[in-house]
Amino acid sequence: MKERLLTGDRVTGNLHLGHYVGSLKNRVELQESYDSFFMLADVQALTTHYKQPETLKAHVNQVTLDYLSVGIDPEQSTIFIQSLIPEIAELTAYFSMFVTVNSLKHNPTIKAEASEKGYSDLYYGFLGYPISQTADIAFCKATVVPVGEDQLPHMEQSRKILRRFNQLYAPVFNEPQAIVGDCARLIGLDGDSKMSKSKGNTIDLDSTKQEVYDQIKKAKTDPARIRRSDPGHPDICPIYTYHTVFRKEESGGINEGCQKGMLGCVECKAMIAASINTLLEPMHERRDTYLQKSNYTKEIVQAGTERARLIAKETMEEVREAMMLNYF
Amino acid sequence: MKERLLTGDRVTGNLHLGHYVGSLKNRVELQESYDSFFMLADVQALTTHYKQPETLKAHVNQVTLDYLSVGIDPEQSTIFIQSLIPEIAELTAYFSMFVTVNSLKHNPTIKAEASEKGYSDLYYGFLGYPISQTADIAFCKATVVPVGEDQLPHMEQSRKILRRFNQLYAPVFNEPQAIVGDCARLIGLDGDSKMSKSKGNTIDLDSTKQEVYDQIKKAKTDPARIRRSDPGHPDICPIYTYHTVFRKEESGGINEGCQKGMLGCVECKAMIAASINTLLEPMHERRDTYLQKSNYTKEIVQAGTERARLIAKETMEEVREAMMLNYF
Repeated sequence: MKERLLTGDRVTGNLHLGHYVGSLKNRVELQESYDSFFMLADVQALTTHYKQPETLKAHVNQVTLDYLSVGIDPEQSTIFIQSLIPEIAELTAYFSMFVTVNSLKHNPTIKAEASEKGYSDLYYGFLGYPISQTADIAFCKATVVPVGEDQLPHMEQSRKILRRFNQLYAPVFNEPQAIVGDCARLIGLDGDSKMSKSKGNTIDLDSTKQEVYDQIKKAKTDPARIRRSDPGHPDICPIYTYHTVFRKEESGGINEGCQKGMLGCVECKAMIAASINTLLEPMHERRDTYLQKSNYTKEIVQAGTERARLIAKETMEEVREAMMLNYF
Repeated sequence: MKERLLTGDRVTGNLHLGHYVGSLKNRVELQESYDSFFMLADVQALTTHYKQPETLKAHVNQVTLDYLSVGIDPEQSTIFIQSLIPEIAELTAYFSMFVTVNSLKHNPTIKAEASEKGYSDLYYGFLGYPISQTADIAFCKATVVPVGEDQLPHMEQSRKILRRFNQLYAPVFNEPQAIVGDCARLIGLDGDSKMSKSKGNTIDLDSTKQEVYDQIKKAKTDPARIRRSDPGHPDICPIYTYHTVFRKEESGGINEGCQKGMLGCVECKAMIAASINTLLEPMHERRDTYLQKSNYTKEIVQAGTERARLIAKETMEEVREAMMLNYF
């Protein structure tokens, strides 16, 4: 029997190359070896988007198509909607009884966001999301959780919460292990920060060929390089980073050509745009296949959610028995 | 159609005369006029009893019997178990997105308990109980909530949360009204504090005649009164308070007899013990009737919980529609 893996995405926008490099590529490889659960995290999206819940439904559809386009196989993996698993909310309530407010405030990710926003603006649901993330992992008893490095403190808190549950009641849960990806963060087109929908510096997975060319064309490069013959500084150029990620074997030559003022930005950009389009092409094909079958993505999510729900119910029964809340 | 009323009790021990005077008596009267929901609050009990969940099952049974014994009519009212309504946990999660941590900390009841315990010990679930109480009221769209005066800040916060939900999404909820009982707190047998299981100063509703006599016998009276002829101070005597509550019409004479040193404590206590036993007698009879039918209380709670669950599901559908989280 395969071990179970859980991960997911907040449904707040299209997935982009940063997601692909940071996690989606890895997921496609892992789905052979693990019983994989991919969560469309609409409840977690509400921690920041509670004023725009109307955006979630479209994004659920979009992210599902993104998943399918990169090669997540719905026959093999389970794609489901978080809010349709009420057991996650129930587990959150039970875990909440023995997790202190201070331990949440000291969680580095929460802390960073809290100091950014000022405590007076911190919402209760946002403060508690390390607990609800633990419930995400717990409802299906995932043993493996692929995460970015910045999520490691959350994972440590999750392990602690589940260990405590087991000590208090009965050994229902395994302590999940984190798998940290190779290249967790991809630089954005602006060269300033990681690729992120909120920064508007992304190449989305559903971008057309032309969009990729246009976006790459407008991307920042070495600002000190005015003429083609000026020696470039590839280390501060996002385009060069993309070469190292998407054209790794050829990137040595790119580096040299740039530094020596032999390779111009226009040509350099054309090459990376072509490579990215080559990467995206099979994604577009898969996306089109799924789009042609009307309602197909909906059916996939519905079936995945049903499967997740069955497992959630089984776990909840064990939890009720462990806590002696099994009344009838 | 009757308006809906919701109230309940944490299932942490037997109900006692303080509960009867403070709320149960009132509930029995109100159940004619309102579609009444009485909640066995096991999840809320976990905010303080998460280490002793094994006690909850017995107390669920005990509190149900206490309800039935005072005259709550299961044909008319709905008795249900909180943890079996997962929609309460779901609503709590949704409301949590727009309630700030500070507004919870400034809730006077939470504040008092927090300063008692020191913030470092405050559990996340405990901090959030004004939110989960709101979800208790919301799942069945109760419009009327009988509470003690100390609960008014909670009710105000609940109204605020539901108003905010309605503004953000759609007008799903009514703003519930609090009904404050006449005599919210009954003094305990120790004369020091209100009757409370944690103080061990209670007369439980299932006490036998002899237990009532014994407990009243040991109760504190005016410590300055040594001999029968000493003038007493009824105002500081819990026994006199009981006369004003349970033998109101005769209490004027008791007051006079005590102050004049004409009525001795032994006689005074015997009179109130007899009155309390008269009050408890029909409760015992009802309790015996229910106990004789095996499994009957269990069936009542099961049926009540099923009814509550149906209503919860209807409300949740409206909530999902309002938030546009209705995916299928």
